[in-house]
Amino acid sequence: MAEQTYAKGLEGVVAAESDICQIDGAAGKLYYRGYSLEDLAAHSSFEEVTYLLLYEKLPTEGELSAFVTTMRDHRSIAKPVQDVIRSFPASGSLMELLQSTISYLSGYHDHVIKHDANCNCRQTLHQIAQLATVVAAYHRFKDGKEYVAPHRDLSHGANFLYMLRGAEPEAYEGEIMDRCLILHAEHGFNASTFTARVVASTLSTCYCSISAAIGSLYGSLHGGANERVLDTVNEIGSPENVDDWLDKALAAKRKVPGMGHRVYRAKDPRSVILEKDLQLVCDRKGDHNLYAILKKLEASFRSRMEEKGKPLYPNVDFFSGALYSLLGIPKELFTPIFAMSRSAGWLGHILEQRKDNRLYRPKCLFVGPSPREYALMSER
Amino acid sequence: MAEQTYAKGLEGVVAAESDICQIDGAAGKLYYRGYSLEDLAAHSSFEEVTYLLLYEKLPTEGELSAFVTTMRDHRSIAKPVQDVIRSFPASGSLMELLQSTISYLSGYHDHVIKHDANCNCRQTLHQIAQLATVVAAYHRFKDGKEYVAPHRDLSHGANFLYMLRGAEPEAYEGEIMDRCLILHAEHGFNASTFTARVVASTLSTCYCSISAAIGSLYGSLHGGANERVLDTVNEIGSPENVDDWLDKALAAKRKVPGMGHRVYRAKDPRSVILEKDLQLVCDRKGDHNLYAILKKLEASFRSRMEEKGKPLYPNVDFFSGALYSLLGIPKELFTPIFAMSRSAGWLGHILEQRKDNRLYRPKCLFVGPSPREYALMSER
Repeated sequence: MAEQTYAKGLEGVVAAESDICQIDGAAGKLYYRGYSLEDLAAHSSFEEVTYLLLYEKLPTEGELSAFVTTMRDHRSIAKPVQDVIRSFPASGSLMELLQSTISYLSGYHDHVIKHDANCNCRQTLHQIAQLATVVAAYHRFKDGKEYVAPHRDLSHGANFLYMLRGAEPEAYEGEIMDRCLILHAEHGFNASTFTARVVASTLSTCYCSISAAIGSLYGSLHGGANERVLDTVNEIGSPENVDDWLDKALAAKRKVPGMGHRVYRAKDPRSVILEKDLQLVCDRKGDHNLYAILKKLEASFRSRMEEKGKPLYPNVDFFSGALYSLLGIPKELFTPIFAMSRSAGWLGHILEQRKDNRLYRPKCLFVGPSPREYALMSER
Repeated sequence: MAEQTYAKGLEGVVAAESDICQIDGAAGKLYYRGYSLEDLAAHSSFEEVTYLLLYEKLPTEGELSAFVTTMRDHRSIAKPVQDVIRSFPASGSLMELLQSTISYLSGYHDHVIKHDANCNCRQTLHQIAQLATVVAAYHRFKDGKEYVAPHRDLSHGANFLYMLRGAEPEAYEGEIMDRCLILHAEHGFNASTFTARVVASTLSTCYCSISAAIGSLYGSLHGGANERVLDTVNEIGSPENVDDWLDKALAAKRKVPGMGHRVYRAKDPRSVILEKDLQLVCDRKGDHNLYAILKKLEASFRSRMEEKGKPLYPNVDFFSGALYSLLGIPKELFTPIFAMSRSAGWLGHILEQRKDNRLYRPKCLFVGPSPREYALMSER
């Protein structure tokens, strides 16, 4: 291609080929390595999906069993790492702590990173397995509670709820949490995945790459939308306030969080699954208020936008905040949970980057001052 | 521009405009905001150069004095951060620890990051000021020594040597160390700076962005070349072995580290300054062996390459390893020192990114499997 193509924000530039994730925005379909999200959500576990993302195929029974054993072997975190989490100031951000901890963990594992394309980080699964433990430990320490060691008989999602609560969740809660991790595990090139690949392209370690990706996910243009949905729902308070709230929000040109997506022109397939799980949790908990507000908000906002010829659908963030909230998870953990899940996709992309690596090295166009004389202090 | 331009590694793509750094590769000149590196190395300090990179101009006396005060106020690190460094396993990598610590530091500062373009990280200078302290503390703890609190009457470079040694360096050593930090502070778009800007473009914090950049610098395609030069020099052992070593190295198609540069077609201006400083240190220490090997290697390699019509010159990494080594700095700290210095450039680029932000969002081209049916475990 021609030199000096200027693409601000790299818009319209294809930076790599990938065989991990296919998004059919028009049809509202999402595939991980060819398997539809609906099938994976119905039949798979987060651990199996992680295997699929890292090994490019569904595992046999023996492969899955060995993989699950390795991943569960790596769930617990060493005492000094617990201390690092415990001593982090309460006013600090969990996302910054998470970014810090993933690099720090590197010191506790003989990670045999060779700084070359043969790096075997499919065996160093602690970057995925331990993120959940770090998030849970942080939450408990902040509440003045003790560390809960992981429970190796539970799925990744159920174990997360167990470590948060210090008690086993009900079976349906564990299944739903595990499914949430499946739904967020991968979504092609987004800012955090791109960050992971840029760092990996220097032949840096997978700890460095995943840590960097967490830094991107903390950005308000990337993560955090489901927190804003929950804030909105709490601000609205009850279904009969929705229209009044929408009138004011639209007049003030406020955005309605969780609605609309850059790629999907149909229902986001993740939101369809999340809605069903939210309904189930509402039924089991006997609390339908959040869901009622969300459904009224969805319907009212969509009908107003359809009048303008702009149909908008709920995206992945619309129902997840309410779902997590009903599972007893505080808002502060929502984006860290996203990181826990997406770490599987990040590692898949890091491996893919290493298979056929080229350092990402775009140019910048210098538009600054021409060479000028240095003025001594007395002349300024 | 057209959709779907495929640019592997983003080659030939201009991703942003920048007014920070101009590199004139043909003339072998480098300018920070229009000021030549030679002028800055002769007249400026690392703190003044940091001001220039962050504020887009040279400071007046009052501005510099206030800036230096702020930066020196932020040099020391809190006891819990010292503990985090002390408890990091000896087998771990200092670069991964550094990436971890910069995010961890965020919790100890009321950094008032607003997640928007007005973020005021020019006042949160600890990301630059404290990196040197973290590196020095790590080195001392590893040797079983105590933390040395920073000395606020010393320049950034001299204070670094002071914290490493626990004793004030000679004046010329401090000046040379400070100059090394000036020389490495900025060099346009490279993998780590690009990483910092990608993370910043999500409106994440400067801690997250600088931490991510450190992760990229750890990659063997980016940092670490001056370590390899020193390894080479030690392998050669003495000047009379150079030609024999070169014969074997070229026959085995080994690279000669520290020679040649993608951009400079003349002497790298940084290497010219570094060579003078290396000569000075050799004279003062009365030890000329490393320098003699380097000069013989430079001359022999260049004459062989000129025969092939490919003149090659020393780059920034050629003399710096020997220089650091003579200042008593172990090899393991070379890339971390690069990070200490480049953090100033990274922060300059983060601020520039925020002034006119567009999220970096290239695409990837899906080349994986078509939608396929999920096979139940019994069918695999």
